[in-house]
Amino acid sequence: MARIGFVGLGNMGLPMAGNLTKAGHEVLGFDIGGAALEAARAAGLALGDDLAHAVREAEVVVTMLPAGPQVRAVHLGEDGILRRAAPGALLIDASTIDVATAREVADAADAAGYAMLDAPVSGGVGGAEAGSLTFMAGGSEDAFARARPVLAAMGKTIVHCGGPGTGQAAKICNNMMLGIQMLSVCEAMVLAENLGLDPAKLFEVASRSSGQCWSLTAYCPVPGPVPASPANRGYRPGFATAMMLKDLRLAQSAAQAAGSPTPLGAQAAQLYGLFAQNGNDGLDFSAIIRMMRGQAG
Amino acid sequence: MARIGFVGLGNMGLPMAGNLTKAGHEVLGFDIGGAALEAARAAGLALGDDLAHAVREAEVVVTMLPAGPQVRAVHLGEDGILRRAAPGALLIDASTIDVATAREVADAADAAGYAMLDAPVSGGVGGAEAGSLTFMAGGSEDAFARARPVLAAMGKTIVHCGGPGTGQAAKICNNMMLGIQMLSVCEAMVLAENLGLDPAKLFEVASRSSGQCWSLTAYCPVPGPVPASPANRGYRPGFATAMMLKDLRLAQSAAQAAGSPTPLGAQAAQLYGLFAQNGNDGLDFSAIIRMMRGQAG
Amino acid sequence: MARIGFVGLGNMGLPMAGNLTKAGHEVLGFDIGGAALEAARAAGLALGDDLAHAVREAEVVVTMLPAGPQVRAVHLGEDGILRRAAPGALLIDASTIDVATAREVADAADAAGYAMLDAPVSGGVGGAEAGSLTFMAGGSEDAFARARPVLAAMGKTIVHCGGPGTGQAAKICNNMMLGIQMLSVCEAMVLAENLGLDPAKLFEVASRSSGQCWSLTAYCPVPGPVPASPANRGYRPGFATAMMLKDLRLAQSAAQAAGSPTPLGAQAAQLYGLFAQNGNDGLDFSAIIRMMRGQAG
Amino acid sequence: MARIGFVGLGNMGLPMAGNLTKAGHEVLGFDIGGAALEAARAAGLALGDDLAHAVREAEVVVTMLPAGPQVRAVHLGEDGILRRAAPGALLIDASTIDVATAREVADAADAAGYAMLDAPVSGGVGGAEAGSLTFMAGGSEDAFARARPVLAAMGKTIVHCGGPGTGQAAKICNNMMLGIQMLSVCEAMVLAENLGLDPAKLFEVASRSSGQCWSLTAYCPVPGPVPASPANRGYRPGFATAMMLKDLRLAQSAAQAAGSPTPLGAQAAQLYGLFAQNGNDGLDFSAIIRMMRGQAG
Repeated sequence: MARIGFVGLGNMGLPMAGNLTKAGHEVLGFDIGGAALEAARAAGLALGDDLAHAVREAEVVVTMLPAGPQVRAVHLGEDGILRRAAPGALLIDASTIDVATAREVADAADAAGYAMLDAPVSGGVGGAEAGSLTFMAGGSEDAFARARPVLAAMGKTIVHCGGPGTGQAAKICNNMMLGIQMLSVCEAMVLAENLGLDPAKLFEVASRSSGQCWSLTAYCPVPGPVPASPANRGYRPGFATAMMLKDLRLAQSAAQAAGSPTPLGAQAAQLYGLFAQNGNDGLDFSAIIRMMRGQAG
Repeated sequence: MARIGFVGLGNMGLPMAGNLTKAGHEVLGFDIGGAALEAARAAGLALGDDLAHAVREAEVVVTMLPAGPQVRAVHLGEDGILRRAAPGALLIDASTIDVATAREVADAADAAGYAMLDAPVSGGVGGAEAGSLTFMAGGSEDAFARARPVLAAMGKTIVHCGGPGTGQAAKICNNMMLGIQMLSVCEAMVLAENLGLDPAKLFEVASRSSGQCWSLTAYCPVPGPVPASPANRGYRPGFATAMMLKDLRLAQSAAQAAGSPTPLGAQAAQLYGLFAQNGNDGLDFSAIIRMMRGQAG
Repeated sequence: MARIGFVGLGNMGLPMAGNLTKAGHEVLGFDIGGAALEAARAAGLALGDDLAHAVREAEVVVTMLPAGPQVRAVHLGEDGILRRAAPGALLIDASTIDVATAREVADAADAAGYAMLDAPVSGGVGGAEAGSLTFMAGGSEDAFARARPVLAAMGKTIVHCGGPGTGQAAKICNNMMLGIQMLSVCEAMVLAENLGLDPAKLFEVASRSSGQCWSLTAYCPVPGPVPASPANRGYRPGFATAMMLKDLRLAQSAAQAAGSPTPLGAQAAQLYGLFAQNGNDGLDFSAIIRMMRGQAG
Repeated sequence: MARIGFVGLGNMGLPMAGNLTKAGHEVLGFDIGGAALEAARAAGLALGDDLAHAVREAEVVVTMLPAGPQVRAVHLGEDGILRRAAPGALLIDASTIDVATAREVADAADAAGYAMLDAPVSGGVGGAEAGSLTFMAGGSEDAFARARPVLAAMGKTIVHCGGPGTGQAAKICNNMMLGIQMLSVCEAMVLAENLGLDPAKLFEVASRSSGQCWSLTAYCPVPGPVPASPANRGYRPGFATAMMLKDLRLAQSAAQAAGSPTPLGAQAAQLYGLFAQNGNDGLDFSAIIRMMRGQAG
């Protein structure tokens, strides 16, 4: 069991820290936000006085933050992790951020003598609470080997994707496919309706044919065929449009920087952007089927 | 067993007619093209002298033709099926054509006293030869019940999709999803490469995650992960770009006529169109990954 | 002066027929719709008893109809123009329709011994009333020479574009550019606002720079810079979204049939389609700027 | 007349510095690259020993650099302009860079007591040599008033767009429109050809109609109608595809950061990206018409 500093105690971070505690680790948490600290205290999590205190004696530091700038600030800042963490600590950033920042921070960590892993997750708040997250990890073999038992307390599927930044790369590549594939299903389902073909029939055909995808068979955007999908509960997330949009924009930034063509990825980012802007950012991303039906306003 | 007139003896039609013969049906074939007739004769298929002769005494007429105009001409023309087929014959059109023409011909057949089914297939030449095609059938319950034993001699999966035209609708909806999803995989795989993430790792992650789709897990456009996919044999089809483009254009025509939005479907049709136009129409449609790599010329 | 049969007396056709009468031509009108006939009678236009009567003695037949199927029916039908018009009459179709139908009808006219011109217009109801329409004409030199004095009574700019169908081709090519260019201006204007750049400043810069276009300098989608543009009157058309969508779909049909890539044209058709479907089809097409602002619902 | 430090002596910067000298200003130049320094020396420009020397006694510092990171480094670095320029100097950055960096550097300049203007140009190398550039300037009224006589020695049209960053905003908004509009013309011209309509006829119609734009009437992508356009000299730039792509990507970054929808802008960036990647980045951007013709490889 390890001494763990956990920075970022939001909707995802708090249950993840809780699962570490349950697994027998000695966790000291911290968050910059008063409400998050309050919730963490209520949940019985031990808290550091400040960032430095939370990480000073940790063997492992886990961060779960909203975006690249926060990850940079928490690691590279005046009183940041790279100046305050114990020598030799392992740093695991579970945030979903841009590849460029992930690599910049990993380089700085390396220069400061810390092993670091980018390890973004999929599975959402449900997965965080159930300890069933998927981790996509980027970093050295050695760092991955050290991190595995810690990640195993929070998730079920843990994949080593390669060197620094490849965890973030895997996540945005997967989610770009997801965002496009969901649109493919929404367009086809509405076209079926408009052609007089029962969507349930299209589901029956396509789910065992070449149009099969997870968005269809595990998360169907029309009510009925997949009882657990958000379509059956008024598109309550699940995975909110705002989160999908964030990931698609990360993919676009990475693709632009790398000069990699993503014509449908770019268009998907635009379509979820238009949908979000019409007041739908809090709905599940599969609700974009409403846009195809002229009900997005 | 039935007397069957089979019109259209191309790469698909000839092995389909062969399977009907093998199943014990009495088949009389016809094609307008000399080469096709020659091949059919060489294959031992009994041939009618002309269209009228081939269908005159048939209980079931199966047509397998390139596009809507041919289907219209063969049914509605001067010496066409609706004037020459035996009273009460069942008409099965296995061609992939536009929904509007399918419905127009089905209406005319109904007015002339024939039951008719649109029953486009998926599975390609391989499926036609192996008798393992999927049929998506549109027409009355009664017509479907009569057709089923005939279709069963040529295919393995036979789905009744609804009334006239819904077979065509199901096929283009499925293939529109397929065309989009393949692009999602190609864009993500090339982005992975450009970000330093091994495509095999992305395959490993996404194939058990929310980015999973048939194009990834059964037909992967990079060599390696799915040994049987066309990527492993220089993108020899499989399913040619020209065929995918045909289906995406049918989907666009139907969507325009129905006023149904398909933003990614439209863009996919454009991208395969650009790819085909640069001399790649004979390659498997998964070869469009080359376009993302700047190797499409 | 000529005897003219005028078929199609809607918002465009009636004032066009009126201008022919004012110019001294002897006009006999007809429409299939009771309300249109009533309005024509109220406007003092002489009316035929039926289509055959209206065209029987005409030297020139002008048609102004909603779409291809009507143009086909009125010309090729049982009692249609090609069976009832006087031998040697000149046929001018001013409707905006698909190129394929225009060519099919022109071929049939030719076979029946009539000279025919496709001559779609731009300029809208205002131009029709003012007699200031632009005509884009396709047909033989001879037909164009005969048509010119008739067209001159209804329009100001009259261009001979080439053989049959090229008038329609010119119109859809122009309007496809227009639809795309308007979107370019809307996207840029909203981006300017969101970046803290006054749209009036962007207008000042771009109107004399390489971003200049008619949609910007003659029809600006933000209120202010171009006082006469629909943006200054709540986006009352002008040129309705539904009409732009019709033309973009005609362009897509023609492009698909010709195998001509139009990636932005396809996307523009989708975007106006989404905008129309959210209840905005009656607004001027420049109102699509609201979609970029998240106010399209 | 003023003492001016000029940093960045590439294809654009060197002739701009030359025009300042010709106008009677006392210019001291600097560049980090040996070849550029050599060329500047050959052109007779007075050179500083290093960056600090070039700007130490300048009343005005002009920078003309490739991208945001260079602008940031030259201003904010250890021996950068904000530490070495004379107190009260006016800083003019004529580079085309991202809005965010422009604002970050302007803020830092302000904090260090310098007035600063972002002033990107259009007009290319030709305009730089002829002294006929267009400047789009962002900064305070006061800074703009001081800068005007300096800019007037290098350009003809000088527009004050608003506060810091609005010069960059105006440039990318204009060029995003340009990139989209050029595609609109290319798609329409090729469609015209494929429909049997002479492109020269489409030019004649659209140049006086609602499809008019600068890309058509001043820079036509088919040879003939506009004799001076790059289409008449094998698409030698002019304005290279690589430069258009750079500006479209800046626009996409700004739009993403601002949450501003740009569906056609995003697609244009993708299309020029695909075109560039097939080995065409050195051709004029109007050469993208070749992509529509299937000649992009």
